[in-house]
This record gives sequence, C-alpha cells and structure tokens, in this order.
Amino acid sequence: MSERIDTETPMWGKVTSLALQNSPAHGLRLWDLPEFIRAFAEVKHAAAHANRTMGLLDDTRASAIADAAVDVARGGLLRQFPLRVVATGGGTATNMNVNEVLAARAGRHLPADVSLDIHPNDHVNRSQSSNDAYPTAVKILLSRQALDVAAALRDLAGSFRRQAERHDGLRRLGRTAWQDAVMVSVSDMHEAHATAADRFAAQFEAAAQTLHVVPLGGTVLGTGVGAPDGFTQSVVEQLAGITGLPLTPSACPADAFAHADGYATLADIAARCAAILAKQCEDLRILSSGPNGGLSEIKLPTLQPGSSIMPGKVNPVVPTMVIQASFSIRAAATAVGMAVVVGEPDINPNTPAVVASLSPALTELAAVIPVFIDKCVDGIAWNRERLAALAARPFDSLITEAEEAGYDVVADSTVS
Amino acid sequence: MSERIDTETPMWGKVTSLALQNSPAHGLRLWDLPEFIRAFAEVKHAAAHANRTMGLLDDTRASAIADAAVDVARGGLLRQFPLRVVATGGGTATNMNVNEVLAARAGRHLPADVSLDIHPNDHVNRSQSSNDAYPTAVKILLSRQALDVAAALRDLAGSFRRQAERHDGLRRLGRTAWQDAVMVSVSDMHEAHATAADRFAAQFEAAAQTLHVVPLGGTVLGTGVGAPDGFTQSVVEQLAGITGLPLTPSACPADAFAHADGYATLADIAARCAAILAKQCEDLRILSSGPNGGLSEIKLPTLQPGSSIMPGKVNPVVPTMVIQASFSIRAAATAVGMAVVVGEPDINPNTPAVVASLSPALTELAAVIPVFIDKCVDGIAWNRERLAALAARPFDSLITEAEEAGYDVVADSTVS
Amino acid sequence: MSERIDTETPMWGKVTSLALQNSPAHGLRLWDLPEFIRAFAEVKHAAAHANRTMGLLDDTRASAIADAAVDVARGGLLRQFPLRVVATGGGTATNMNVNEVLAARAGRHLPADVSLDIHPNDHVNRSQSSNDAYPTAVKILLSRQALDVAAALRDLAGSFRRQAERHDGLRRLGRTAWQDAVMVSVSDMHEAHATAADRFAAQFEAAAQTLHVVPLGGTVLGTGVGAPDGFTQSVVEQLAGITGLPLTPSACPADAFAHADGYATLADIAARCAAILAKQCEDLRILSSGPNGGLSEIKLPTLQPGSSIMPGKVNPVVPTMVIQASFSIRAAATAVGMAVVVGEPDINPNTPAVVASLSPALTELAAVIPVFIDKCVDGIAWNRERLAALAARPFDSLITEAEEAGYDVVADSTVS
Amino acid sequence: MSERIDTETPMWGKVTSLALQNSPAHGLRLWDLPEFIRAFAEVKHAAAHANRTMGLLDDTRASAIADAAVDVARGGLLRQFPLRVVATGGGTATNMNVNEVLAARAGRHLPADVSLDIHPNDHVNRSQSSNDAYPTAVKILLSRQALDVAAALRDLAGSFRRQAERHDGLRRLGRTAWQDAVMVSVSDMHEAHATAADRFAAQFEAAAQTLHVVPLGGTVLGTGVGAPDGFTQSVVEQLAGITGLPLTPSACPADAFAHADGYATLADIAARCAAILAKQCEDLRILSSGPNGGLSEIKLPTLQPGSSIMPGKVNPVVPTMVIQASFSIRAAATAVGMAVVVGEPDINPNTPAVVASLSPALTELAAVIPVFIDKCVDGIAWNRERLAALAARPFDSLITEAEEAGYDVVADSTVS
Repeated sequence: MSERIDTETPMWGKVTSLALQNSPAHGLRLWDLPEFIRAFAEVKHAAAHANRTMGLLDDTRASAIADAAVDVARGGLLRQFPLRVVATGGGTATNMNVNEVLAARAGRHLPADVSLDIHPNDHVNRSQSSNDAYPTAVKILLSRQALDVAAALRDLAGSFRRQAERHDGLRRLGRTAWQDAVMVSVSDMHEAHATAADRFAAQFEAAAQTLHVVPLGGTVLGTGVGAPDGFTQSVVEQLAGITGLPLTPSACPADAFAHADGYATLADIAARCAAILAKQCEDLRILSSGPNGGLSEIKLPTLQPGSSIMPGKVNPVVPTMVIQASFSIRAAATAVGMAVVVGEPDINPNTPAVVASLSPALTELAAVIPVFIDKCVDGIAWNRERLAALAARPFDSLITEAEEAGYDVVADSTVS
Repeated sequence: MSERIDTETPMWGKVTSLALQNSPAHGLRLWDLPEFIRAFAEVKHAAAHANRTMGLLDDTRASAIADAAVDVARGGLLRQFPLRVVATGGGTATNMNVNEVLAARAGRHLPADVSLDIHPNDHVNRSQSSNDAYPTAVKILLSRQALDVAAALRDLAGSFRRQAERHDGLRRLGRTAWQDAVMVSVSDMHEAHATAADRFAAQFEAAAQTLHVVPLGGTVLGTGVGAPDGFTQSVVEQLAGITGLPLTPSACPADAFAHADGYATLADIAARCAAILAKQCEDLRILSSGPNGGLSEIKLPTLQPGSSIMPGKVNPVVPTMVIQASFSIRAAATAVGMAVVVGEPDINPNTPAVVASLSPALTELAAVIPVFIDKCVDGIAWNRERLAALAARPFDSLITEAEEAGYDVVADSTVS
Repeated sequence: MSERIDTETPMWGKVTSLALQNSPAHGLRLWDLPEFIRAFAEVKHAAAHANRTMGLLDDTRASAIADAAVDVARGGLLRQFPLRVVATGGGTATNMNVNEVLAARAGRHLPADVSLDIHPNDHVNRSQSSNDAYPTAVKILLSRQALDVAAALRDLAGSFRRQAERHDGLRRLGRTAWQDAVMVSVSDMHEAHATAADRFAAQFEAAAQTLHVVPLGGTVLGTGVGAPDGFTQSVVEQLAGITGLPLTPSACPADAFAHADGYATLADIAARCAAILAKQCEDLRILSSGPNGGLSEIKLPTLQPGSSIMPGKVNPVVPTMVIQASFSIRAAATAVGMAVVVGEPDINPNTPAVVASLSPALTELAAVIPVFIDKCVDGIAWNRERLAALAARPFDSLITEAEEAGYDVVADSTVS
Repeated sequence: MSERIDTETPMWGKVTSLALQNSPAHGLRLWDLPEFIRAFAEVKHAAAHANRTMGLLDDTRASAIADAAVDVARGGLLRQFPLRVVATGGGTATNMNVNEVLAARAGRHLPADVSLDIHPNDHVNRSQSSNDAYPTAVKILLSRQALDVAAALRDLAGSFRRQAERHDGLRRLGRTAWQDAVMVSVSDMHEAHATAADRFAAQFEAAAQTLHVVPLGGTVLGTGVGAPDGFTQSVVEQLAGITGLPLTPSACPADAFAHADGYATLADIAARCAAILAKQCEDLRILSSGPNGGLSEIKLPTLQPGSSIMPGKVNPVVPTMVIQASFSIRAAATAVGMAVVVGEPDINPNTPAVVASLSPALTELAAVIPVFIDKCVDGIAWNRERLAALAARPFDSLITEAEEAGYDVVADSTVS
C-alpha cells in the first residue's frame, strides 16, 4: 500500500529534537498511528493549496509542499515521526514535527534549477496554528476510524442475521434471574444481537458526521489571527476534496476550542458498544459451557488447544478475547472523559491524550469484530438435543393456567 | 399539586412485606422517586383500559383500578411505596408493590353496592410481567427527566446569550496552556458556553425520543406470553394518551430485554454535560480569583460569608457547588455502564440499579442548573479595567510581524 | 438511642439561611447523615474544652457549648441541619450550620441567672476554620464507617467458614473458561470466599487507622493562624477522648490540605470489596440456576415470589440485590477519584462531594453484607446429587495419563 | 544489555501459530513487554530445576531448558513472542508460546552428542498449568514495576525536598476557593509535595510485597493436580533465588485463582498517584501562568518553542504532558477494575487484560516521573517580587482583629 521511502537520516528539525529530549522514551509514537500522520499531511496539503489561492504562497513552494504531503500521507516517511503522541504540551510539537518534515521533504520536490528555502513555520504552517491544525487532523482520523468500526458492525449484524435465518423456528428455554422462565425463539435472540450491532453502527456513523465539522482556519483560539479573510472557507473546501470527506467549518470556533465533549461522545459510543459485545460474548461463553458439566446449549468452533496440561480441552477463546479487549476500549472512554473536563477557559489542551487513548481503542474495536464474526458468530451451532432436554418445564403452561385459575391457586400447587 | 391521601395503614401485601424483610433498611426508596411511582401507575392505568378493551377485565374492576392509578399517580399514596429502589432481584418486588397497593386502593373505588375482589396479579398485573411493566415505567420516568434537563439547559443557553449580547465588543486576553496568547472576544466566549448548553439540550431531547419506544406488551422476555394478540398496540396507545408522550412499541422486544445500552446512552449524555458544566464553573472560579492575588477578570455575585474565620471573605460558592454536584452525576454514568454490561443471555436484570443511579443524577442536574443561572451566570460582571491591564502584551502583533519578517527573526527578538 | 428533642423552630442563623437559598432544594441533606452531625458536634465539643484550657473561652460558655454538642451528637436536633451535603462551596456553610445551631442551643444550657451571648464564630468556632474542622469531622465519620464495614466483613468471613466446615470433603467439578476442568473442593471454595472477606476487612481497618490522623488545629490551610500555640495537641487529645478513637494530629498539615487521596484510598477499597462481593454473588446466581435448565449446583433460600406472572418462580433475589448495590458503591469511588484530582494549589475544596458519595456507599456496603449473610450465605445448600452428575468426566485422569503417555498422545485420543 | 540472538526463523510451535491466526493482527504484543517475557522465562527456569530435584526431569533436559530460559530472560529472543498480550482466552496461548520457544531453544543447548526430544508440554510445562504459571509471571513483572515506580517517587520526593530547603522562609499568599486567604510557606508547600510522593512510594512498596505471594505449584485451579507433593515449596524457592525476590507460595490458592483484586489494588495506587501528580502539575501550570496576564508566582524552565505561530511563546510543556499521561494511567485502573469483577466461580480469566492495561501504565508512570523531576521540579523558580505583590492584603490581620473585636464587627468593616 505505502511506497517505502523511509530514510535513515532524520528530516525533522529543532522543535522535534527538543520535544524528543523533553519526553520519556517510551509509549505510543506518532509512527504507531499512520492514519493520524496521513490526516495531518492532508491538512498541510490543503493549506498549501489555500495559501496559494489566497496569494500567500508562491506556486513553486505550494506545489513542493503539496507533493511532500502526498508522500507523507501515503505512509512513506513514517519513521520521521518519532514523537510520542502525548509528547510535550498540546499538539504544538506534533504540528511542528509535521511542519519540519514536510519542509525538508518539500525541498526534494523543487525543480532541479530552483533553490528556495521552505520554512516549517513561515510556509508549511502558514495561516495555521497548532490550535486549529491539530484537532482538524484528529477529527479526520477519528471520523474515518468511526466509519471503519461502523462497517465492521454492519458485517456483524449480517452474521447474526444469518444465524437468525438459519435457526428459524428453533426454540430454547428463556431464563430470568438465571432461573427457568418461558420458551423463547433462537431467531429472536440472534435478531436482537443484530439489532444491537446495527444500532451501534448508526451511532458511529452519526458521530463521524459530527466530527466532519472542523476548526481549521480558526488559528489561535478560533480568532483567525494570522490567516486572511476567506481562508477558512477555502482551506476546508480543499481539505474536503483531498480527504473525500464532507467537511465543513465550525460555526462557533470558540466552542470548538473550549469544549472537547465531541471526542467523549465518540468514546462513549465505543465504550457502550464494547460493553454490549462483551455481554454477548459472556452469554456465548456460558451457553457453550460443558461439555458435561455446563449448559451446552451451543457449540463454538474448535480453534486451538485450551490447556497446557489438560489434553483435549477446548475453550471459547475468541469470546474470551473480545471480553478482555472490551476493558481497554471502555477504559479509553474514561480517559477521554477525564481529558475533556480538565481544561482552561479558552482551550482544551488535552487533544493529544484523546488521540492516544481513543485511536488505539477504535483500532482494537475494528480489529476484534471481524475475528469475532469469522471465528465465533459464523460458527455458532445450537445443540438441539440439549435445548430440548433443558426445556423440560418452562412456565408457559402455568401462566396460561393462572389466567383461568388465578395466580395464587397455581402458585400454591407448585410448592413441593 | 398532590392531594394528600396518605394513610398510616399499610395497603401493600405479601410480596412487598417479604421484600421489605429481605432488604437492608437503608437507601433510596420508591417514595423518594414520586415521578417513578407516577409513571408506574400510568402503566397500570393503561393496562386496565387495554384489558377491558380486550375483554379480559370487567368494566367495574377496570374503572376501579384506573381510579386507583390516578390517585397514586397524583402522589397521594407515596408512603405506600416503602421498598428500596434496589430491593430484591429485578423489578418484581417493585411491580408487586404497585400491584398490591392499587388492588387495595381500587377496592375503595368500587360502587358502594358492589363487592368484588381485586387481585394484584390476576387483575392489576393482567397481561403484564415485571419484565415489561418495569422498564416501561422507567422509560417514561427517564424521558420526562431528560426533557426537564433539556429545558433547564435551554434556559442556561439563554442566560449565556444574554451575557454575550451584554458584552458585545469587549475583548480580553486569551490564553493557551495558561500562557498569554491573543486577544479574544468575551461575547464569543459566552456564545461558546451557550452553544454547548444547546448541544447538550439537543442530546437530551434525542435521548428522550429513543426512550419513547417501550417494551410494554412483551410480558416475559418479549414473548407476549400471557397477553392476547393485539394487546401491545392497544396498551401502548392507551399509555401514550395517559402520559401525553409519543410512545411506540419496541420493534424488537428481545433486543429491548437483552440490551440495556439505551440507559447508558442517556447516562453518558448527563455525564458529559455535567463535565462541561464543571469545566465552565472551574473557569469562572479561576477567572474570578482575587481580589488582590488572582486574575480578577470577572466578579461573581456575593451570596454569603465565605469563611467561618476570615471575616469579609467571599467565595464562588455556586460554581464550586456545581463542580461537586458533577462528580456524582458523572459517577452515575459509571454505575449505569456497569449495570448494562452485567447481564444474562435473555435479560438485563439491573434496571433497578439504573433507576437508583440515573434518576437522582438527572434530578440533581435539573436542580443545579437553575441555581447556576440565577446565582451565577446572570450575575457575571466583567472587570473592564482588569481586562485592559492583563492584556498588556498579547501575541497578535508578533504574529503579524512574523508574517513579514519570518517566525525565526521574531522569535529571536523576543528572547530577553 | 437518640433523645428526640427536635423542635419545629429553626435554631440556625444567617449563614445557614443564605446557603439554603443558594442551593437546590433536592438531594442529600446533613440530616440524612446523623453520624456526620455527631462527628461534627464532637469536634466542637473538643474545641470548647481546648479553648477553655488555653484560656480563650470562659468556663460558662465552654460548658454550655459542650452540653449543646452532646445534645447534637446524640441526634436530638437532626432537623436543625437542613443543608445539602453538597451545599455551597466547601464545608464553610456546613461548619456554620453546626456553629449556629450549637450557639443557639448552648443558650439553653446557660445557668438560669446568666445572660451571655454565645456567638457562632467567636465562641463555637474559636481557634478553628472550616478548613480544619470540616475534614476532621469527615475523618471521624469515615473511620467509624470503615470499621463498621470491616466488622460486617468479619461476620461474612465467619459465615463462609462455617460453610467450608459444613462441606468438608465434598467435591465438585471445577471449570476454567467455563469449560469442565478438574475436581475441586467445596470447602476450599468457601475458604477462598472467607479469605477475601478477611482481606478486605483488614484493608478497611488499615484505612480507618490512616483516617485517625486529623488536621484539627491547622485552621486556615494548616497555618494555625487564629489558634494559640499548643492548641493542636490539646484539641486533638480532647477529641480522642470524646470520640474514643486514637486520633493524632497531621505531621504535615499542608499535605493534608492539598492532597485528598486518603479519601480515595478508602473509596477504592470499598469499590474493590463491592466488586468481589458482586463477583461472588454472580457465581451464586449461576451455580443456583435451574431448576431444570441450569447448573443447579446449589440451592439458595426461598425468600419471596420471583415473578408477577409466573406462579411458583423463585429467584436469587439477595445476590441480585448485592450485585446492583455494588454498582453505586463502585461508582462512588469514581466520584471520589474525580473529587481528589480537581483542586487548587493550597486546598482540595471537594470534601463535601467526598462525603456525599462515600458515606452513603459505606452505609450501603455495611447494610447489604448482613442481609447477604442471613438471607443467602448461611443458607447455601449444595446439591450433592447434581454435583455428582456434573462431574462425569473431569480432566484429572487425563492429566495423570499424559504424565505417562505424553500430552500429544492423550490429546489425540480425545478427538472424537 | 541483551545479547541479540534473535533469529528470523520462528521457533514457536503449533499452539502459538493457531493463536496468531485466531487473533487480530494489531495491538500490544508480548515482545512489547520484555520484562514480562523475562519473568515468564524465570518461572520456567525455576520449574526445570524443581522438576529435576523431584526426579521428574532428567539432568540433561533440565539443564537445557534452564539455559534456554536464561537466553530468553536476557531478551535475546524477543521476536519469538509475537502473540498479542490479549490473545485468545486466558494465558494458555502465552504460556504455550513460552513453552514452545523454550523447547525449541533448549534443543540448541543439548550436548553435541545427545539427541533428545524436548516437549513444550511434557518437559517445559511439567508440573505446571497456565493457571499457575501465568499469574506467577505476572506478579513478578508487576512487583518489579511497582518497585521501579516507588524508586522514581522517592527521587521526586527528594527533588521537592530540595526545593523546600532552597526556599526556606519564603512566604506566599495562600488561597481557598481560589480567593485570597492567608500567608503560607513555600517550603511547606514543597514539603507537602514530597510527603505525598513518599506516601505513594510506600504504597507501591507494600503492593509489591503482596505480589510476592505467588500461586505457582497450584497447577489447575490451585489443586496441585499434575504436580508432585512438595513441588510448590521447591519451585517457589528456586524462583525466589532466580528472581532475587522474596517470593512465597499462596496460603489459599483457591482465593488466588478466584479473586484478582490484588491487581486492582496496585492499579488503584497507580491511579491515585497519577491523579495527585496531575493535580500538582495543574497547580504548577496555573502558578506559572503569564507572563503578563497570569499569576506568575513561579517560572518553569524554558524547554522548547510553545507555538507554531506565536514566536517566543513558552509553555509549561512537561506538566502538561504529565497531566495527559495521567489520564491513561488512571484509565488503566478502570480497565483492571472491570477485569477483576467479571469472572467465573473458580477462576478469573482476565489476567492477560490486567497485564495489557496495567504494565504499560506502570511503565508510563515510571517514565514520566524522571522527566517531571529533571525538566520541571528541579527548575522551579519562585518569583519573589511577584509573591510580594500578590500578598497585598491577606486575611491574617483580620483574623487577629476578629479575635478581639468579634467576627461580625470586622466583617461589617470589610464591606466596601
């Protein structure tokens, strides 16, 4: 997918170097998030075009920067982005890492006979601030990830619906408080699973739409200082074209800068989705318990040895994995919730922490769902014999009896 | 509002008595949530009508139950609902408390010459299960509370907008990372506050709409066992009429029973809203710090002595209260998130825990916002003299300079 | 226990009245926490003595205040404390409510022939600030509650140990990943339950000890301003005597004021304890599932009808209740965690929010454990016939076989 | 430090291969946690010795496995551990990855003239189960990390104490509710910082001690099935020698398997520590606000350009980074808390999720503290001129006045 043009030589500049010195050497790096680097390069690409359009950047430099941005967006210079996502301060160091690498790389795209300096701040960052460039890149990143998760959930809904069709007419004992209750339909159960998956897909899609409103053009604190009139409209249009996303400018930039709850909305959706998936997986684990000492209503695909000491043991490894993955996805929402509430009057400085928690959580969610589909849901086999055995005495008939004879009479008759 | 017809004599029956014995004596009781009792009575009222319509209940009993339900809905028998919200098991005991009290009270509404037994299960609970009646009452309760919060937030938006208008043209020093940045508009700041309040109002309104889909008619696990064909449509229509809410039946009852994430969606909105209000309040606290040793950009209304030992000290008591209230509101979302993920294959048994955490949180949110408006936001006074003093050297001019001279030149010139 | 000497007439003064006006009308009130009022009265009682000892208060006033404090500590004036726990600001309003009521009440304890004004600030609050008086009362309250929970947990350990003894030698199928594994001992399982209960009891006891270090005497921000030299030692000794608790003064008052993590330590213990209790209860729910379609390893006591529509249904109502109670207890730790991190350089203003979340959570924990013991753990009956049936084919023998024949050989032989 | 003996050729076997196929391709891998692999190798090393001692493994194989374990522990085969930490199921796949690689590697350590098969299950895993080997490795890992954090915190306490000494006698305006209060000591403030750091160090040290109780020897569910009598004592002694840690066997293995709250205890300490560090950092951010429009009580070291558009702007980048790092550390405790409560009657299957959340969080905590010390705390410079200016009118004198004249008189006099 990406042309490999990484070089050993660092292309970054002074600010990146200082930020490296002022940060721990561990943790999530920009290069671990290629889609974030891509989105940031797209922002710079759009800005180069808009600056040229507004007469703030000459054609030569603008083209060179745009070409460099394409290189970076394609993933070819990943190792040039060594900063921690949670580096130093807000997004300034990250923005400068992008500016510095693009400035250096743009030099390689100048016509052979042209010698022009290309400056990280004066040219690449022209008409922008970290305040607006950073969250714009974040919103592009997260909206794409939200749509990826939504697509995976639509697939999951499809898988559950196939199971619903496959088991049309099959009935099993329903339970309340884990106690035998009435006969229910297996199809309805899977239809419920599908409905939940679709509901979350729709929530992710709606959240993506909200993220398509971007603060680019607002520069420092939404004031637009340092950018010419009309820049916002121009640059956001360019960016929409480059990204293929229906981006629009923030109607109230001061709100966009001060209040970061939009990220929390997405994180909360991911958390609820992970929680419901975990709940479904726990159900599958217990319904498949056995083979002799459990419920054994379903059988899940046999995938790998389940024990290092008990030969032949088989475990529900995929639902167990999904449950464990859910903890960190749900915890990410906690982190984002914290990041949102701690702020300053004019700006929320914690967007890097949002990225560091939320982006991997969405990646994880989008990654576990296909495994859940392929290695588990598609292979659920209901044990018809066992369903029949467990359904020895549901309450259906007692309910009907009580309609005639009265609840108390029937209740008394059940006392052994 | 409520006719006081409480009586000393318990009207509840056997199940309520047992549940009282089997629960702790502390904690939130049904009588602490009159709006929940009201909603539950409305469910029973609708069921009495629908049962009569379907020929399952005679006119006399149906009328008596309906009349009793009106008494209860009006709040006249509050002390007849002594159970803890988190009593024993799911909502069965609560449903039976309502059934038992209504059965007893309905006896008082029979014509003088009529002697008919009215039975909690056979008549009041006819065609219902706790499985469907309980969450239906919960959804009515929570949707009304969500709309109450939304209305309060619309008022808050109005208050902030009035401040925006009042301070048109006023400018103050904006900060990033708490360091002096550029001049920003006071109106824009308040407009951002208002925009956030409106955004949350819209989220609460949307959540209320989602809650208007109710599982009534599904009886046990959404099967409809024990209810006649057509009951769902009939009873939900009745309930819509009685409550004045646009209620509709669940399209996939099995989903409604198995997956409780809808409550978490509402709880998450409340948590984010509380977090943003807390953030705004913390801003107000710091902007009003002083009088000599702080920022003193604004002055908040003087409300009460701020110290027991420092005479004349004045504190920002209302924003401090809102911040503290926010913790429990946000924590309620944690509790609801836990309640949602722990379940059983066919049903989530934890709706009582959802009510116990979420309903008081929404009450608190709806209660603190008007105080925040009246005692704080409406009285924010900007200190123009101080704003001018603090704005001695914003970066606006350096940004402009750098556009001409280049970032590095200007940066070098600022080093003292 | 408490002499009822409530009066209809408000005895509180100006600050309490203003705080009432400046707060919402809903929510947890001081009168809902009698043990908090008791602790606060004990602080004032100790201060009256210490002030007399240091010559700052005459004998007559000191005695009158002490007598009034005893009245309040005994619970006789509960309705005189109408403020919300999260009222306005930090604990100032609460401290003043106590000061004002004690000043008024003290007037009734003056000798008949004496006419002396007793002033809330000048006499009752003498040598104190809300800064030190409030958290001292909180620490007394919470340490007592922590010890109450510890005692309940020791009882629970006892109950589990009795079950361990009762089932000596009984074996059941152990499971990993819900799949049949090897035979385990029922006694060991209950011994593990007991060990966990004892571990949490020890943690609560240790937390109580930490809370016995109190900041009283520190007045404003731990400076001791407004209190004479030696006051700290004197008042804390008095308070230790009055409360019967081994209280000592803070070695580093500035730490006590700035960092509130001690409350979070206690809240985290409560959360973990509630989580483990919930885990044990979920186990009991599933092990008792049935009667026909579940595991049915154990039978729990039959307590009350489990359904409004299914006559004769019995549910595990008490473990279900404990699980639901656990959500709010665990959520309280979230709230306290938030309260701890949001602060100011010199003080954490959120102690009232800590009280409002943590005190009810500890009450709930101490209240559900005895119910759990009496209505559930003491009555667990293992179903020996069923245990035997479920243990048809554990892996014990295959493990032994594999020691001889090798894992792979045995694994291959198990493939059907 | 580590000899690089990685090879390109996979040395792992069938189970690892299957687990790779059954997992997502993203996320935290074993090779990202070299200290975990080290601990696991140490467990296998100890088991080889103990098995030889008990006569279950011949000298040749035992030596070869021990030698291989030393290679792995030294980090030389990192890339042979490609599984996700949260791979499939509990720790079985991870345990098998270690068994398989050690078996393959041990072959290389056999004498040249010896040809013996070394089997992952029959030899490397002899007398062990994933149930006991996995959490033992986890406890070794986490106890070491806890001690690393403790050491960093002791350094931090030292740094704050140096600041306390450096500023002996310096006074500044203390605030409550962000409003001017009384004069406080700068030294006391830093002493409070140091006291908090020491307190957390002690908590980490105590948690490490608790983790030194390990379940090794318990095999499946603590039964010891598949291990000879005396194995537990022997293997834990070996392991203590190899690791240099004071390890002892679990007194109640069933508790160790069923209840995972020990991990949550450590995670909660990390969360509280991160929260308090974040609180201190937020204080430093605000106290250093300015240079013209803020409090400017302190100046932090100038580290790097603070803006891409505002030349010369300097931000408090390190405290901002620490705050952002705190969110994910605190969120890890949320994840661990979830992992602990979801279980099965006999075992908690979620230890891999605990490792995946908690180990990186502890690494992060141990990594940010030295940066915080070197780049921030050591360089805090108090602005004496500014401290004097802000201290224009503290309440100290009014408190003294009120002691004579009475609170009300002085309060009235302050009304302007």
